[in-house]
Amino acid sequence: MALLLHPGPVPVEELLGSVRTELGEMPVRVWPSIGNPRDIQFALVSRVPAGLFAELPSLRLVGSLHAGVDHLLRDPGLGATTPIVRPLPASSDTLMNEYLLAQVMLHHRNGVSYREAQAQALWRRLPIVPIRQRTVGFLGFGAVAEPAGRLLSQIGFDVAAWVRRPRRDGAVPIFDGEGGLRPLLQRSQILINLLPLTPATEDLLDASRLAQLPQGAALINVGRGEHVVECDLVDALDSGHLAGATLDVFREEPLPASSPLWRHSRIVVTPHACRRVDVSAVVAQFAAELRRVEQGMVPLRPVDRQAGY
Amino acid sequence: MALLLHPGPVPVEELLGSVRTELGEMPVRVWPSIGNPRDIQFALVSRVPAGLFAELPSLRLVGSLHAGVDHLLRDPGLGATTPIVRPLPASSDTLMNEYLLAQVMLHHRNGVSYREAQAQALWRRLPIVPIRQRTVGFLGFGAVAEPAGRLLSQIGFDVAAWVRRPRRDGAVPIFDGEGGLRPLLQRSQILINLLPLTPATEDLLDASRLAQLPQGAALINVGRGEHVVECDLVDALDSGHLAGATLDVFREEPLPASSPLWRHSRIVVTPHACRRVDVSAVVAQFAAELRRVEQGMVPLRPVDRQAGY
Repeated sequence: MALLLHPGPVPVEELLGSVRTELGEMPVRVWPSIGNPRDIQFALVSRVPAGLFAELPSLRLVGSLHAGVDHLLRDPGLGATTPIVRPLPASSDTLMNEYLLAQVMLHHRNGVSYREAQAQALWRRLPIVPIRQRTVGFLGFGAVAEPAGRLLSQIGFDVAAWVRRPRRDGAVPIFDGEGGLRPLLQRSQILINLLPLTPATEDLLDASRLAQLPQGAALINVGRGEHVVECDLVDALDSGHLAGATLDVFREEPLPASSPLWRHSRIVVTPHACRRVDVSAVVAQFAAELRRVEQGMVPLRPVDRQAGY
Repeated sequence: MALLLHPGPVPVEELLGSVRTELGEMPVRVWPSIGNPRDIQFALVSRVPAGLFAELPSLRLVGSLHAGVDHLLRDPGLGATTPIVRPLPASSDTLMNEYLLAQVMLHHRNGVSYREAQAQALWRRLPIVPIRQRTVGFLGFGAVAEPAGRLLSQIGFDVAAWVRRPRRDGAVPIFDGEGGLRPLLQRSQILINLLPLTPATEDLLDASRLAQLPQGAALINVGRGEHVVECDLVDALDSGHLAGATLDVFREEPLPASSPLWRHSRIVVTPHACRRVDVSAVVAQFAAELRRVEQGMVPLRPVDRQAGY
């Protein structure tokens, strides 16, 4: 029995430290030093190379270090019955909320237009809209989005959200299903995408969806690069229909230096920097699920493979 | 008896509308159509041309449309006994709070460094500091600053302030006097200047004061351009001691296109856009003071000419 770690961008020493704290006695292998693949019953991973899971016949549980698990679900080597778990953000993990607050406030106060004006040494005052007159829409309103929505709502923004399955949470208006997408888009002066990437959400933000946003709207994408049809976004910015966009995720990461997204005057690029892995919290959650599986139970919160998250 | 209006950047129709609402019967002149200068007993003004007040021998009260009155106090034509009043922000006027929140969040989440990296198509993640570990210091903590300080404190920032005269407000730590400046600067990872411009505060932020800020600090100036020694600020940014600055006010406004501030990669320039005049609130406050002076009383809240605000 052994636990395989594939830390990806997570500092390996920090990860090992937390694993020792939570699972002291567990033999640990750090990729690529797998040892005998038959020993690996558990894996806690970032984005793994194709083919890795296919070599692990004894795998009983895969934990993701990140909230997005689309790459795991697309991995043909991962048996359809092997449970996957992903971390829920700890309530103390405010980094995503803070990133979204920063980006919402930037667009709310014309940050992209002022950046453009500064590049031209142009003194040009723009109308100021008070927060109470500004609507923010969330695509996806799960455990990561909801605290951010609450914060923005407390500050005074008019917050709404769109989700796949009907919900009655009450804190903010929630639209759902195919029919709910248009009304959410139509009211979102600032749109935040936090959807999981699934076949149903890939390329969701195309020309027709972006056209449903109000004139002068802004897009903040912290979901996946694959949610946005890049050339449609660039067209919507160039035509002036959208005032600006913040992109933190991309189809290819790191974003290649040749990408025109870097150079667009109305796009703010950040390098997948919205949050960082809260290592001790992630390992503690994973360890609890591992203990269950070790004892022959199913995980408490497995990823729903049908839904894709 | 007449009221002279010098609207400056304030839309004249909006100003006239509020004046008619509050002071319906009062004869009004709009600069430069002064009529008989002896008629002018009251004036509600933006930044007036030099020499204007010297021509108004009957002046009994001057109201400023803006919070800053340094230009009025420096006007040699304004008699030393003529009372001056300035608007207090209405509690509903949240625009300054929102501007400061936007700029604080920008610097808090490395917005200037990421803007520099984007210009070079450089994918480079920077360490993320949670809000709870970030200190924000205010220079000046009057009616404009305090609500912003409260908001930042609610969101989780560690807020402190520096003022001229000792105060015991309790909500945030307040340093005062000459001896209190250094400890406030030393703890301010993000420094917000909202001081009034007086002989005592002119050029306050020079090389020696900027050097007292912690390594990697950011400056947000919404006071007056004259508070900051520009070449010292540029040196502190170029040396890397300061990570960034937001400047909304300048020694010359509009900022001339030739100014190097426009082109500095670590300076965010906004065109004195932190707030706009809340015309109906300003006129209502001025009208109340005018009524008192009309009835032979002194204004309720005159500007303290000794203090300079």
